[in-house]
Amino acid sequence: MEETRVDAALRAVRALLEANDIQAAIRVLESLNAPDQADVFEELSPEYQETLLPQLDTEDSADILEELPDEDAAELAQKLPVDALADIVDEMEPDEAADLLGDLPDATTAAVLKEMEDAQEVLPLLAHEDDTAGGLMTPPEVVLHERMTAEEAICHVRKVAPDSETVYYLFVVDDEKHLVGVVSLRELIVADPQARIRDIMNRDVISVRVDADQEEAAHLMTRYDLLGLPVVDHENHLLGIIAYDEVADILEEEATEDIQRFGGAEPLDKPYLSTAVSWVARKRLGWLLLLFITETFTGSVLRHFESTLSQVVSLAFFVPLLIGTGGNSGSQTTSTIIRALAIGDVDTKDIFRVYWHESRVGLLLGAMMAVVAFIRALTWGTTVWVAIAVAVSIWTIVLWANSLGALLPIIAHRLRIDPTVVSGPVMSTLVDATGLFIYFTIARMILRL
Amino acid sequence: MEETRVDAALRAVRALLEANDIQAAIRVLESLNAPDQADVFEELSPEYQETLLPQLDTEDSADILEELPDEDAAELAQKLPVDALADIVDEMEPDEAADLLGDLPDATTAAVLKEMEDAQEVLPLLAHEDDTAGGLMTPPEVVLHERMTAEEAICHVRKVAPDSETVYYLFVVDDEKHLVGVVSLRELIVADPQARIRDIMNRDVISVRVDADQEEAAHLMTRYDLLGLPVVDHENHLLGIIAYDEVADILEEEATEDIQRFGGAEPLDKPYLSTAVSWVARKRLGWLLLLFITETFTGSVLRHFESTLSQVVSLAFFVPLLIGTGGNSGSQTTSTIIRALAIGDVDTKDIFRVYWHESRVGLLLGAMMAVVAFIRALTWGTTVWVAIAVAVSIWTIVLWANSLGALLPIIAHRLRIDPTVVSGPVMSTLVDATGLFIYFTIARMILRL
Repeated sequence: MEETRVDAALRAVRALLEANDIQAAIRVLESLNAPDQADVFEELSPEYQETLLPQLDTEDSADILEELPDEDAAELAQKLPVDALADIVDEMEPDEAADLLGDLPDATTAAVLKEMEDAQEVLPLLAHEDDTAGGLMTPPEVVLHERMTAEEAICHVRKVAPDSETVYYLFVVDDEKHLVGVVSLRELIVADPQARIRDIMNRDVISVRVDADQEEAAHLMTRYDLLGLPVVDHENHLLGIIAYDEVADILEEEATEDIQRFGGAEPLDKPYLSTAVSWVARKRLGWLLLLFITETFTGSVLRHFESTLSQVVSLAFFVPLLIGTGGNSGSQTTSTIIRALAIGDVDTKDIFRVYWHESRVGLLLGAMMAVVAFIRALTWGTTVWVAIAVAVSIWTIVLWANSLGALLPIIAHRLRIDPTVVSGPVMSTLVDATGLFIYFTIARMILRL
Repeated sequence: MEETRVDAALRAVRALLEANDIQAAIRVLESLNAPDQADVFEELSPEYQETLLPQLDTEDSADILEELPDEDAAELAQKLPVDALADIVDEMEPDEAADLLGDLPDATTAAVLKEMEDAQEVLPLLAHEDDTAGGLMTPPEVVLHERMTAEEAICHVRKVAPDSETVYYLFVVDDEKHLVGVVSLRELIVADPQARIRDIMNRDVISVRVDADQEEAAHLMTRYDLLGLPVVDHENHLLGIIAYDEVADILEEEATEDIQRFGGAEPLDKPYLSTAVSWVARKRLGWLLLLFITETFTGSVLRHFESTLSQVVSLAFFVPLLIGTGGNSGSQTTSTIIRALAIGDVDTKDIFRVYWHESRVGLLLGAMMAVVAFIRALTWGTTVWVAIAVAVSIWTIVLWANSLGALLPIIAHRLRIDPTVVSGPVMSTLVDATGLFIYFTIARMILRL
């Protein structure tokens, strides 16, 4: 739905820009929601982007810089005059402002910070890595003291008139600014106006350390359905809050990394089309080489069975079919188990249950594939004995692949290695050499070679 | 962190239950947060679960049934007396209550609804599929009228004293209950008490149709950072609200489906260990068979080049190595592109840019693999010409696999087919037969066979 809205707006903005009616183009842009604005903006040529941004409302410019991919935002920001950029950065969410400033050259960052009004909000955030809890937090706009009354607290909220949605969970501190509780705006409004905050607050407040990984923060927020997660230092002083809207971005980033690893490549960490060819190649070469070396064992196995192969040449025709099917079956298993581990359906202690489950799946699937393979072998005009060897081999290989696919991710998890290393490519490579060995051993026995 | 907390609590609860001190076990359970309670509860034997649940606080029981996997919750619920179950379901979030009732036998559902106090809240939700917007919504607890003042609205919120967090976004209706705007609790508190809602509300309210897919709802909520998404019928009447805490669950469910498809299997739709072996096999058989049939083309290619193979037997040793490397390289590409499509980094119109990008990655990676393969072939004692044929083939195959891996997901996307069908197994199978053909054609030319 919003796809077409963006497309229509983009056409209009482009037409107006080409007709040199910049003001009308700005009016169209300003009528959109921030994410749509950013989408339209991203599609414009760099020249138009530079022309438009300083002419937009500062708040809109801030929204656009927040929504653009990090590299694009940094590139665009560097082309703006320092004072215009400082005004825009002042309007950005402090955590986004810190991310942007961290991506600019040091001299530009220093110049912008000097021109900013709210530099003191952003400064403490610059020290944290983007992917830690500290890199995601914003300073709390409203902090309650445990001795306030509900009425005083509401007045305080009204006075600060916060413009962010982090205000729905209000965190409570003691005299030394230690985090001691949380009260929701809803509870405040519903409470007796004279009640003390310390009597209505929830003391069992879940927080995260400033240096924790962003994944841990997202995990806590989704597990406990938190609207805001307070970030504390090692002495439990409240430093900032991570807002609920960061969670989806973190989950998306982590899922992207998992899927790229799952395809047998290191995560790119950047939007695909803005990643240099050499960088993409570098992120893939390691795995590709390692798999290649593992795969060379297939050559050793084939050489080992060279005499078997030369006696019954038709055995060779089934090689890719058998090891391919084993690899596919193993990939199916491994993707199911990796995901089950990730979402907690399966844990290390379930290893024997999982193995038993997958063994039966392997026996069942293998039997069905054996029937199909037997018929296919006969229709290719091989002897019945070769067809039997092929059928028994495929059954055994599927069972073997499913067992490997079930056990390896759990063993990796147990060894605290990311289970996604047992990706589809790794599975099919492992099954290739071992599957060949199984095939020729069975063929030798059945054909009495 | 919460892992160890859960483990400790589980040990304590088990020990107390074995010592027959049920009350103490209940006290330990009740001291935990709802997600932790459910985790501990899930690990207990069915007998203990049945004993404990009716003795817990109704609110805690409701939380546990909400957090348990759907099937486990339904199984447990059926063992409870109808009146106890009705009390618990009354305490559940209406959307969760409707999910649970939908999983029970019709007679039980009817009996429970008859005993419930708030049945009218749940009844309209029973008509919607779990995975649509309607299946995720809860009825709005507080609805504002556009003619109210800010002060009246706050009084109204206080009077209803809602116990859910959906109250932070308050939706506004007109006389005919059409959705006309939204105002946040923050804006209400900050506004002039005498201001009319219709003057402070935001009229550009984003909503979703009741029959829309849950993925669309999650997409809107993450794109526009919504705390609550209003659900409307085709005449824009407000029916319910989807809360922010549903988003993470939907994203997790969709990512699970993607990853299972990516491994070349249909999604299971259920927690792994509670899925029957025959069901798992059924979800995998279709793809496995289809890939098997495609893979049989490798046999045809090998038969086609039988004379080449019999003249230079050493060519056979490199077959799994070459097609395996091609498959791995293609899997790497396809996982990157599928993910880039999913998060919007890449779109159909980028097809040529992506192709050009991947071609260069393929040329670079292929060249590096060619060098390694050439050396490996020589160390295996093949002739220089065979080594050259292997090196040129691997270069060509990697380039070909990367091109396929780049183009196929985008073409699928364009044809409105889920790009995850071009999974790792599909890629390696496609590359197997075509890679063999490339290899033998190049070998024939170089070796002049």
